[in-house]
Amino acid sequence: MSETLIQTLLQGNRLALARLLSHVENDDPQGRAALDQLFPKTGQAHIIGVTGAPGTGKSSLVNQLAVFFRRQGKRVAIVAVDPSSPFTGGAVLGDRVRMKDLQGDSGVFIRSMASRGSIGGLATTTAEIVQVFDAAGYEIIIIDTVGAGQSEVDIARLAHTTLVVEAPGLGDDIQAIKAGILEIADILVINKADRPGVESTERALRTMLELAHPVRKVFLHHGQRMEVEAPAETPARLWIPPICKTIATDASGLPELIQAIEAHAAYLRESGDWHRRERARLQVEFDLLLKDALSARFRAQAGPARLESALDSIVRRAASPREILNSLLEANS
Amino acid sequence: MSETLIQTLLQGNRLALARLLSHVENDDPQGRAALDQLFPKTGQAHIIGVTGAPGTGKSSLVNQLAVFFRRQGKRVAIVAVDPSSPFTGGAVLGDRVRMKDLQGDSGVFIRSMASRGSIGGLATTTAEIVQVFDAAGYEIIIIDTVGAGQSEVDIARLAHTTLVVEAPGLGDDIQAIKAGILEIADILVINKADRPGVESTERALRTMLELAHPVRKVFLHHGQRMEVEAPAETPARLWIPPICKTIATDASGLPELIQAIEAHAAYLRESGDWHRRERARLQVEFDLLLKDALSARFRAQAGPARLESALDSIVRRAASPREILNSLLEANS
Repeated sequence: MSETLIQTLLQGNRLALARLLSHVENDDPQGRAALDQLFPKTGQAHIIGVTGAPGTGKSSLVNQLAVFFRRQGKRVAIVAVDPSSPFTGGAVLGDRVRMKDLQGDSGVFIRSMASRGSIGGLATTTAEIVQVFDAAGYEIIIIDTVGAGQSEVDIARLAHTTLVVEAPGLGDDIQAIKAGILEIADILVINKADRPGVESTERALRTMLELAHPVRKVFLHHGQRMEVEAPAETPARLWIPPICKTIATDASGLPELIQAIEAHAAYLRESGDWHRRERARLQVEFDLLLKDALSARFRAQAGPARLESALDSIVRRAASPREILNSLLEANS
Repeated sequence: MSETLIQTLLQGNRLALARLLSHVENDDPQGRAALDQLFPKTGQAHIIGVTGAPGTGKSSLVNQLAVFFRRQGKRVAIVAVDPSSPFTGGAVLGDRVRMKDLQGDSGVFIRSMASRGSIGGLATTTAEIVQVFDAAGYEIIIIDTVGAGQSEVDIARLAHTTLVVEAPGLGDDIQAIKAGILEIADILVINKADRPGVESTERALRTMLELAHPVRKVFLHHGQRMEVEAPAETPARLWIPPICKTIATDASGLPELIQAIEAHAAYLRESGDWHRRERARLQVEFDLLLKDALSARFRAQAGPARLESALDSIVRRAASPREILNSLLEANS
């Protein structure tokens, strides 16, 4: 990585940024060197994770968020992560749809990423892409992930503020609303709020919230059961995920959602959670990097012939996978 | 793990099975010892993966599959994997719904699993749970996963036959139908086939299939564009994923779906793919085990103090994560 490309990047050159992102995605020596150089400049951006099932209109919502943050004069990067798509590099269909409202705006940069099949690999690359945007001066970085699986949870851990997007009428409430996803939500969004069933979706979410944040039950004894916005007497260091209703297609509810995001950032800074999340986030990044590196080192040390013959023994049921693993580890310890 | 518990398990005792599964899920010494002992008895079951987004009615479909396989006198195990749920061990809501049709049938065993937060950990445990059922003589093992993320893809790799379940009207076709998910599908199921929009879902799936399996384009020149069932002149060693339409709530299309599953098993055995998939499956299991083991060993060697101070340096931006990692790896190589 030439010093010049980094300088050009830091001056705001989009082409330099795109080239650098490709180096990072390819995990090539230039990408790695750039990451090392850029890392001290990171830690400035507000990283916002947005996750939700297909059909929730999440992409349109992310689009609108970008538009609203742009109106505040903030530079916005969108990292669109689709673990189930084999495509990468910005050419996927969803982006073209997305680009309509945002194209021609030099303050917005969209990058699509996809799985190359390795566990953990996608989250590692996502973390690195976010670092590049952060160092390049993007104040808002939105990580847009599809679905509700473990990899989405891992990716959500990279964010300061996580939005979980639901929509009315997406099958059984049992299936659509997952306690584990609620646990990662800082803000719940019911998009397509003009659709039938919005009340029952909201009710289901509030019930789940009560289970996940039992402290709120105390407040609910004093008021309406349906009233969930954090009351005035809530301690400053406690964040109760608000529920925002939006219609992304006509931007209804967007100003309130932006306010909730900003309130969460303020809460994080006042409570000290910003620093704690930052540390947890970097811990996750480091753990992912560590697993990848250890696996690559071990494979190189053991060599393909030994690994193949180990697999042969397992296929023949000569020994269990763990027995084979232990003997390999002993031989390469 | 006492020899007695294993013997009791192999005699078909459900309580012994439940206890053993808990040992395996807890990854305790008894569970590990049992896996080593049981492994030589594995390799008999037909492992069927079922994946699909919330709202597709996938759980009801899995339920019906179990009912139909039971009618053939086969013992059926269902491993319900929900990467986004913090619950485990069979107490989740979905199971209670599911249990209605199947309860009291000693030939069916349902086990729910959930993420404990570790990357790769869930897929490893799923593979091990499947081994226990396989050794215990369950002829059909259904792995039922939620969503379309990377962890679901990893879990699908553990199966011989993978069903991808779609439903009409689940948001934009762009979002709902993912090329990467199609790549893992051996059989495509459009459930809720009595709903409006079934034709457009089917059309979208067929288009994606043509992209994924270009060989079919040749056959399509000779016939109807919409005719996709593998024609007679298709070589025996080529499997083109059929599209099955079902209504799980009244079992419509279930006999045809069971036929398709059996045809896929026959195809796998005739073509030699059964053995190749078995090998690939064991490779995946082994890789997952390896990553977990390497990470645990490294952490033990480096010690918590060193890892904490490494993280401190990263948080201070004193050095990049990779630079810190490299110095840690050098110190512990």
